[in-house]
Amino acid sequence: MPPGLKDVAARAGVSIKTVSNVVNGYTHVSADTRARVQEAIDALGYIPNAAARQLRTRRSGVIALAVPELQSPYFAEMAGLIVQAAERRSWTVLIDQTDGQAERERNLVAGLRRHAIDGLIFSPLALAGEELSRGGDTPMVLLGERVWHGPADHVAIDNTEAAADATRHLCGLGRRSVAAIGAQDFASAVTAHQRLAGYRAAIEEAGLAWDPLLVARVERFHRADGAAAMAALLQRPRRPDAVFCFNDLLALGAIRTLLEQGVRVPEDVAVIGFDDIEDGRFSTPTLSTVAPDTARIARLAVDLLAERLGDGPAASDAPREVRVAHRLVVRESTAG
Amino acid sequence: MPPGLKDVAARAGVSIKTVSNVVNGYTHVSADTRARVQEAIDALGYIPNAAARQLRTRRSGVIALAVPELQSPYFAEMAGLIVQAAERRSWTVLIDQTDGQAERERNLVAGLRRHAIDGLIFSPLALAGEELSRGGDTPMVLLGERVWHGPADHVAIDNTEAAADATRHLCGLGRRSVAAIGAQDFASAVTAHQRLAGYRAAIEEAGLAWDPLLVARVERFHRADGAAAMAALLQRPRRPDAVFCFNDLLALGAIRTLLEQGVRVPEDVAVIGFDDIEDGRFSTPTLSTVAPDTARIARLAVDLLAERLGDGPAASDAPREVRVAHRLVVRESTAG
Repeated sequence: MPPGLKDVAARAGVSIKTVSNVVNGYTHVSADTRARVQEAIDALGYIPNAAARQLRTRRSGVIALAVPELQSPYFAEMAGLIVQAAERRSWTVLIDQTDGQAERERNLVAGLRRHAIDGLIFSPLALAGEELSRGGDTPMVLLGERVWHGPADHVAIDNTEAAADATRHLCGLGRRSVAAIGAQDFASAVTAHQRLAGYRAAIEEAGLAWDPLLVARVERFHRADGAAAMAALLQRPRRPDAVFCFNDLLALGAIRTLLEQGVRVPEDVAVIGFDDIEDGRFSTPTLSTVAPDTARIARLAVDLLAERLGDGPAASDAPREVRVAHRLVVRESTAG
Repeated sequence: MPPGLKDVAARAGVSIKTVSNVVNGYTHVSADTRARVQEAIDALGYIPNAAARQLRTRRSGVIALAVPELQSPYFAEMAGLIVQAAERRSWTVLIDQTDGQAERERNLVAGLRRHAIDGLIFSPLALAGEELSRGGDTPMVLLGERVWHGPADHVAIDNTEAAADATRHLCGLGRRSVAAIGAQDFASAVTAHQRLAGYRAAIEEAGLAWDPLLVARVERFHRADGAAAMAALLQRPRRPDAVFCFNDLLALGAIRTLLEQGVRVPEDVAVIGFDDIEDGRFSTPTLSTVAPDTARIARLAVDLLAERLGDGPAASDAPREVRVAHRLVVRESTAG
């Protein structure tokens, strides 16, 4: 039987309560007592629980998660899943919202060491490459499309292929004027660029002509942007009979505009989104989408970070690139 | 003209870049140089920016925000607004998700001092009263209904009155079988208890009979719970012609069930929610709701915390209770 609290207390000549206080990191135990308890713990090889292990490894048990915006249900769901995965390792997760601003992302990476944080899971929007290396030796796992071949472990889906799959689904319904909502012009909008590339590839693969007038640009990936973009597309001479929206929020906004204007979904215009957020499972019509395996992304991010922290199998030195699967989810908005 | 970086650099006999490094807390400046720069800063009364002020007051510039769940759009929107309000003070906000579990809320309050956090904005679900006082001297502002007359500054709307307003709106439409979705039986479900009390008060005020069979219980406040509760209500002998849902997610789930079963909203059943999350502005039909002044709650929480941290007007000792307004937002789901 492995040694218990009682054995440690007996060997250190203190009460069980005192051992527990030391193990839990309470500060009102004298340095002398603390040292005696720690000696007994070491001598017996006592591993009480995650808290004690953290104490011995001088870790705080706190990791940070940085995402662009929590108001985006996708990032909120991701954050919730990462908190759950971290909880199984008794880690606390502190979440930082960067709004995708380069300055805030820089401060985040530079400030890590000051905040007693063991590691970082980071979904950057603005930073890439070298700038991400400034975190010093704080272990980091990167999420999202921005950072292939970056300086740290990285977990992401094949974004371009997933966008192509969504578009192929629309073409497969026999639609011939397949529009896209979500293009963005700024250089750092890698997610938008990749999804546009996937859309274009699938359009050309289906033998349809590439028509820039079927592509609507947006400022952000919010419902209001999708609603406005759809209204603009309906004004153009060639009316779409299907729309691939680069995320579900854009799609929900687009559907609102269509229904408001008496356009039937999916009969007149089929709509597909991206992310598989909960909203699309309860909207009317329910929303077809591309579902990244978000639960797996969350689990992998925590597992990779744990390896770098020495909690799991030994970490190799080279950054690892991990691809996660996605799948097409067909619901009412394209099932006409 | 107030002294600038240049004046500090000249007085300390270092480069402007070095002053900037000290002010930004970079660690590669020698202790000796740092001391010289700090002396010059003090002598000249130089106040460069928030970062420097934080350095001098020994604050980390980091506050924590703890909410029950980020997957709830209401808490996600609140978190986003608090991050924005904090940004105007150059504070970084780290967000912790408690899932409303007592154990995690306890750990959060107990662990504050270990994490170099200046203060906490906390929306507790499980803890109340005395247990909340264990945070030691870390300044704290509480949000939500759980904690009237608690140990710290507290910002909330009048929850019972807001629920009564939602129900009055339904009664005012001439509806006579006004149901409620969102009752919860456990003692700590203060939000649900208060909203049920407001609902009941408005029902009786309208001269309608109190009918427990019109009240549906839920496990959580999620869309799936609202969908299931609505299905259950439709099975009961007395069919409702209106439903007050205790939050917008429940309402969106309830509307999905109604439309799926061919029940028209609002013609057959009018539906109102609570929170005014973005989803309800783009759903079909758009969702009537009660809107707390969430932006004001966020701003006040940050302002009260700043006062306790000595950044603003002097803080009095007694905890302050601040009520924030709410308003009724009528949209398609009740505008029949």
